Amino acid sequence: MNEDADETVLDPDAGEEDSYALDRRRVTAILEALEAEDRDQLFELIEPLHPADVADLIEQINPAERRHFVELAGERIGGAILSELEEGLREEVIGLLGPEVLAEAVRDLDSDDVVDLLEDLEEEQRRAILGALDAPERLAVQKSLTYPEYSAGRLMQRELVMAPEHWTVGQAIDHMREREDLPSQFYHVFLVDPKMRPVGNVTLGRIMSSRRSVALKDLVEEVFRVFPATDSETDVAYAFNQYHLISAPVVDESERLVGMITIDDAMAVLDEEHEEDILRLGGVVEEASLSDTVLQAARGRATWLFVNLLTAIFASIVIDLFADTIDQMVALAVLMPIVASMGGNAGTQTMTVAVRSIATRDLTAQNALRVTGREAAVGGLNGVLFGLVMAGVAAVWFGVPMLAAVIAVAMILTQFAAALGGIGIPILLDRVGIDPALASGPFVTTVTDVVGFFTFLGLASLVLL
Amino acid sequence: MNEDADETVLDPDAGEEDSYALDRRRVTAILEALEAEDRDQLFELIEPLHPADVADLIEQINPAERRHFVELAGERIGGAILSELEEGLREEVIGLLGPEVLAEAVRDLDSDDVVDLLEDLEEEQRRAILGALDAPERLAVQKSLTYPEYSAGRLMQRELVMAPEHWTVGQAIDHMREREDLPSQFYHVFLVDPKMRPVGNVTLGRIMSSRRSVALKDLVEEVFRVFPATDSETDVAYAFNQYHLISAPVVDESERLVGMITIDDAMAVLDEEHEEDILRLGGVVEEASLSDTVLQAARGRATWLFVNLLTAIFASIVIDLFADTIDQMVALAVLMPIVASMGGNAGTQTMTVAVRSIATRDLTAQNALRVTGREAAVGGLNGVLFGLVMAGVAAVWFGVPMLAAVIAVAMILTQFAAALGGIGIPILLDRVGIDPALASGPFVTTVTDVVGFFTFLGLASLVLL
Repeated sequence: MNEDADETVLDPDAGEEDSYALDRRRVTAILEALEAEDRDQLFELIEPLHPADVADLIEQINPAERRHFVELAGERIGGAILSELEEGLREEVIGLLGPEVLAEAVRDLDSDDVVDLLEDLEEEQRRAILGALDAPERLAVQKSLTYPEYSAGRLMQRELVMAPEHWTVGQAIDHMREREDLPSQFYHVFLVDPKMRPVGNVTLGRIMSSRRSVALKDLVEEVFRVFPATDSETDVAYAFNQYHLISAPVVDESERLVGMITIDDAMAVLDEEHEEDILRLGGVVEEASLSDTVLQAARGRATWLFVNLLTAIFASIVIDLFADTIDQMVALAVLMPIVASMGGNAGTQTMTVAVRSIATRDLTAQNALRVTGREAAVGGLNGVLFGLVMAGVAAVWFGVPMLAAVIAVAMILTQFAAALGGIGIPILLDRVGIDPALASGPFVTTVTDVVGFFTFLGLASLVLL
Repeated sequence: MNEDADETVLDPDAGEEDSYALDRRRVTAILEALEAEDRDQLFELIEPLHPADVADLIEQINPAERRHFVELAGERIGGAILSELEEGLREEVIGLLGPEVLAEAVRDLDSDDVVDLLEDLEEEQRRAILGALDAPERLAVQKSLTYPEYSAGRLMQRELVMAPEHWTVGQAIDHMREREDLPSQFYHVFLVDPKMRPVGNVTLGRIMSSRRSVALKDLVEEVFRVFPATDSETDVAYAFNQYHLISAPVVDESERLVGMITIDDAMAVLDEEHEEDILRLGGVVEEASLSDTVLQAARGRATWLFVNLLTAIFASIVIDLFADTIDQMVALAVLMPIVASMGGNAGTQTMTVAVRSIATRDLTAQNALRVTGREAAVGGLNGVLFGLVMAGVAAVWFGVPMLAAVIAVAMILTQFAAALGGIGIPILLDRVGIDPALASGPFVTTVTDVVGFFTFLGLASLVLL
């Protein structure tokens, strides 16, 4: 009935982890077939797999196995598999494929997928692929490539179904029955005026359920969005998600219909942006994927670690200001990391909420002040709570009541600063056009470290010595 | 042509921030109409808005304005707006609506949206809404509610279009033209065998472009996934994303077709999971949204801060072991936070990559060992790099060559431990069934803090004193 059934037979343990992903036993069998150079067995094993799963397989095996796999099974690596591959590997695999195999592979793809493939390739590979396309498709792809990167024009496909606004259901159906080159997936017929400007869309479901004599314009959907080809893909993806769009028309500068964006394109953009946000928040800036080499990964992470080193040294300079104080009471050195660490964590919490809310457009100019007030209150409240707890811990541990008072006050101030920094820094960065997910972390940590060490050691030097 | 045009007229600045979201000027105008109790003006202002935008509006204004808005505009708050509202506020708004308004609101919704509304409501509100539904829809909703939370059965809608497997295109079209209760959005006709088991799906596009005499079963799509109603929504969303599904049939325990899941449901699940992952990685555990009260938010964050306090105290105990050493050389207190902070950041980087790769199923049993090896190499490499840099900084700052050597070795060991902890802890947590996004942070920080302080201070006490 579906592929899961036979995957489960192949691997009795598959259900445990997940019934959809490539299961381990099949991967092992594929690697064995590879080892044995048994091409028939290999083809039989990958035949039932979805292109997305074959792409996953290629990503998961090691580089030597990967080269071997492409050599042996190259002719089965169609355009759909190439489209599913992560960008870093795609170039490598395309480089290993022969030009004829490659030409064959791209011929079945919709124009948006061809554009997506071409974007990251060297000029030479690009020309080879373009040369393999039919003239009209080549022109469509070249036109798309003239739009800026990450724009609606790059995301769209040229294949779509349109109809003059005065057509009836019957005319639309007859037109579709006659056309040879319908898109592989489509969900709307776009109505256009005589100047080719989209004026409405009709779902296939409504066409299908209406009499032949009904006018298409009486069936148009209420929600209708048109995207200029120069719109950013971020805005397009946001609108698809917000308004539950399935497909939408794209227009050029004279408002003529030139393409269509479908929900799977929008989902791919959202997915990438989520991924990027998570990694950036975690301080992983330039990393493409698990298949990056050690050097690529180390370099990508080093940038951010270097920024962190500067903030850490800055914090240490603050500590050094109070070296004499610490010299007189070593308990301060023992306790000071707690103040900074709690501040850092509270700051990260607030910053995460802020970055996320900016991305989902829940945090706006409208409510920024109110949300900041809430965060300050949350910070103050938790500052008092944990300040008191730590006062108790410090009193018991070191038996110095004034030390307990100092750490309590320092924690309250630090938590409060963490809240203000955690919300204020992302908002400011967003205002000046810097991605808050990327840059907030180091700033927030600097604030919490400096405030933490300065208030704790400063108060101690005033009160305790 | 579309709504943006008139939004831009209303707000010349709208283009600057974003042309789709609610613009600030409209929100201000709405609040003014609210203040003036001008119901007509209010209706006119919200009329052109998409339900998702009205929901955003309700989320962004403050609690008092919100109550006032629902009192004044309650009759315009239809089911679609309720569906779009975030869960925390939905209950509040539903509580403010009169029973007749509520009954009217839910009547137009597909059954999955009604289920989604009902899930979080009190028994009394639940009964009121169920009472407002027609008998067949009520039964469908009640049946869905018998499936476990977060299952395909809860996610699906009962409204769908099916056809016996032997039908032709003509029969399917005639059937759809006759039916009164077609789903509001649908993309496939599901073919069923005589026992009502789904055996294939045909896109509306292919039906539309084929002659009336063509058999439906000659048009079935290659990719076809059937979900048992008890499948988790996570698995369903993963499959929609991986295999680019648009809609898919859901079956009960006897494999009979009982519902349909569409891509917008899957997108909503993915969105929620992304959101949860980001927040959990940032240490925000139980937070629903920006509209949580101060107390709700403070409590949600306190849990995690408390865990962090324990790990921070644990790290301080390690420092305390070397109190005598610090007492003899206060430079150690100045430098030790750098070692721990760099370790913590490197650990967070690796952990973020690991958590993300586990969620996207890129990190599997197949490649876990290889990825761990890569991370260890990255950690070692960056450890050497930053160890040397810090050795230089320490030598210049304090003029003690052995101190420079100590910090270099401590940083290498800490970065290495951070890499192993950052990858190993999420993998282990995932194996034992704990969400790695939720629990990895505190463990990783404990490892890096303890290793950082212990190696740096320990080496110092061995070598320097």
